[in-house]
Amino acid sequence: MEVRVSRKEHFNAAHKLSNPAWSKEKNLEIFGPCANENWHGHNYDLIVTVAGRPDPDTGFVVDLKRLSDLIRREVTDKVDHKNLNVDVDFMHGVMPSTENLAVEFWKILQPKISAISRFGKLHSIRLYETPLNYVEYFGA
Amino acid sequence: MEVRVSRKEHFNAAHKLSNPAWSKEKNLEIFGPCANENWHGHNYDLIVTVAGRPDPDTGFVVDLKRLSDLIRREVTDKVDHKNLNVDVDFMHGVMPSTENLAVEFWKILQPKISAISRFGKLHSIRLYETPLNYVEYFGA
Amino acid sequence: MEVRVSRKEHFNAAHKLSNPAWSKEKNLEIFGPCANENWHGHNYDLIVTVAGRPDPDTGFVVDLKRLSDLIRREVTDKVDHKNLNVDVDFMHGVMPSTENLAVEFWKILQPKISAISRFGKLHSIRLYETPLNYVEYFGA
Amino acid sequence: MEVRVSRKEHFNAAHKLSNPAWSKEKNLEIFGPCANENWHGHNYDLIVTVAGRPDPDTGFVVDLKRLSDLIRREVTDKVDHKNLNVDVDFMHGVMPSTENLAVEFWKILQPKISAISRFGKLHSIRLYETPLNYVEYFGA
Amino acid sequence: MEVRVSRKEHFNAAHKLSNPAWSKEKNLEIFGPCANENWHGHNYDLIVTVAGRPDPDTGFVVDLKRLSDLIRREVTDKVDHKNLNVDVDFMHGVMPSTENLAVEFWKILQPKISAISRFGKLHSIRLYETPLNYVEYFGA
Amino acid sequence: MEVRVSRKEHFNAAHKLSNPAWSKEKNLEIFGPCANENWHGHNYDLIVTVAGRPDPDTGFVVDLKRLSDLIRREVTDKVDHKNLNVDVDFMHGVMPSTENLAVEFWKILQPKISAISRFGKLHSIRLYETPLNYVEYFGA
Repeated sequence: MEVRVSRKEHFNAAHKLSNPAWSKEKNLEIFGPCANENWHGHNYDLIVTVAGRPDPDTGFVVDLKRLSDLIRREVTDKVDHKNLNVDVDFMHGVMPSTENLAVEFWKILQPKISAISRFGKLHSIRLYETPLNYVEYFGA
Repeated sequence: MEVRVSRKEHFNAAHKLSNPAWSKEKNLEIFGPCANENWHGHNYDLIVTVAGRPDPDTGFVVDLKRLSDLIRREVTDKVDHKNLNVDVDFMHGVMPSTENLAVEFWKILQPKISAISRFGKLHSIRLYETPLNYVEYFGA
Repeated sequence: MEVRVSRKEHFNAAHKLSNPAWSKEKNLEIFGPCANENWHGHNYDLIVTVAGRPDPDTGFVVDLKRLSDLIRREVTDKVDHKNLNVDVDFMHGVMPSTENLAVEFWKILQPKISAISRFGKLHSIRLYETPLNYVEYFGA
Repeated sequence: MEVRVSRKEHFNAAHKLSNPAWSKEKNLEIFGPCANENWHGHNYDLIVTVAGRPDPDTGFVVDLKRLSDLIRREVTDKVDHKNLNVDVDFMHGVMPSTENLAVEFWKILQPKISAISRFGKLHSIRLYETPLNYVEYFGA
Repeated sequence: MEVRVSRKEHFNAAHKLSNPAWSKEKNLEIFGPCANENWHGHNYDLIVTVAGRPDPDTGFVVDLKRLSDLIRREVTDKVDHKNLNVDVDFMHGVMPSTENLAVEFWKILQPKISAISRFGKLHSIRLYETPLNYVEYFGA
Repeated sequence: MEVRVSRKEHFNAAHKLSNPAWSKEKNLEIFGPCANENWHGHNYDLIVTVAGRPDPDTGFVVDLKRLSDLIRREVTDKVDHKNLNVDVDFMHGVMPSTENLAVEFWKILQPKISAISRFGKLHSIRLYETPLNYVEYFGA
């Protein structure tokens, strides 16, 4: 029996999209206003989903307090009120598109779920850049 | 051809999380404020998804009025404005975690979908305990 | 110049509506399922609004981190994961209707705003019992 | 590596549900108020999901500005502020249930994604008729 | 002491905006796609607010079950799944703009609040035509 | 007769809070993570409310398409995907708190409403910095 359990967290950050191999003109042509050199920013919503069978002692796939603490300590505390291009170690050299952020969050969280859940594994990362735009990643 | 059709319903209920095999101290250690012996409660949102091919006469996988009536009669009328530990027959002896509620709702609804839909089968139960916490169950 | 600044917090609680001067039958007649003797519960959303002129040094009517800390310490920590009829000192002898909760929250917070805001005063308390039902109180 | 990217758009339209092979009475019996002969209407929300690997040059599975432009030009501009039974070419002879709308939107968009995305394919169409009712289609 | 109590209801309807004193061309020029002669439609959200002092016996300004029943019987049942220009008695001869709908709903509900609330009076009508557009009316 | 009509728009921007008269240490002490020197950002939601009597020819206090166009041209196009401290003329020398942004938006829009509405005046600016934090301004 498998149940999926999801926890939503949020963070606010600045970024810009800019390929260092391209001219300023090409970056503006491809990325439009997202390439604004003085940055822009977003309120991001992050939904982390863990799948597994409920522990018979607790009825939990994963304790959501512990999942929330893990996401905050390992991910959102490192990006909240930060510049994603400049301030975040694990984004150095990575274009801060929503796609790439979700993949990096997966890499950080996937190995750490077993420490907080006997039967659960990371199932997906859903990341909203705006209420109209979001991405999902399910691992390689 | 398969289309998935979803209907959202809601209910308000009290519960507490407490393993009868454990001491009061251990329950507070594991469940934290969710173990408060005088109960707490939630506004639950329930999304029931039925999958199948649309009936050529109606364009419907399932008539959403009939699906809504079924969910209310069989599930939400039995838990709305109730205590999930005390008042609900199908939760006796079951820890009222969101995971376990979703599984019990599946067991009730799964055999009853064929009575209201020619081609549809129950696909999933999604249950929000709060806007930040939800679970999904897709059957055994 | 006056600007109104609002902060949203939330809590989860159990309660029931029951007038001790009435019979069980009359309580059920008047309050319907809200009188269920084994309790029910809600996810409450609380919006606290402070009005005043922005401090010229900060651009703030009130520092929202300090307002959030105040609301949590004085109000939501005292009602979250609690039974509003049984566990909450300031609700003893008060029917826990959404109206009365909002008035009690006002009485607690109104005298404490001046400690965190040079120019601001409490303007209103908005309390959602469900996404469909809410109350507002603006002081006596 | 596959990431799913979703874009939400919306439109407002009138429709009615009515099977031309049936009497007025049978249509009212089966479709209830949805068969009202003078029409009713909805604010529809449409979520289009594209799946693929992020382009290494941009970090994008698909440029969301181009995806939004495609959805508007090919789908929502053709149904927004329209009567789905009368005004929309691709719905002629099709019952305008949410299920059938989602399938027709898929048929229009699926062949056009490759023109705006090197690695992406259409993954799903999610269509909300109301906040309580939605359908999803993943292709035949 | 005054508390404001609000209840949200919804309905789905078709309409068009068209001034019968104007040519078809002028209507299209002024109302744009809202003048589409074959109609369009919306999911409307209606929030009705009653203000007064809480009844000491119940803690209620108004029983929200009775307020909901009143709104449904007198207003939303008469416009739900209807054409606002054609099917609704109280809108005959009235342009079905959101502004005019709110005013007509006020005229219907204002005299009826005293029948369900000892101390409350109608305070406002808020009507959402879409999540981005809404109106409020507070009486003449 | 007065009706209030509201239109919601949005924009995404970067900013930081920093008083140039203060040391770096004092700015971090007062503004916390909002003073991060490499910026952070938000998805802002802006609600502009116009009050007046409906025009008898149209049923409109203000044409919402024209109000939306005005807000975009005069306000959101100038702040969207921008750095509020660096890129925005009307914010030079103004601390970009949500309070101050709302006041500046009022100053821009208030004189321009009469050009698009015969009977309406600007009533309020509501600005959400996050779903949990917002401000309102009603003019001096």
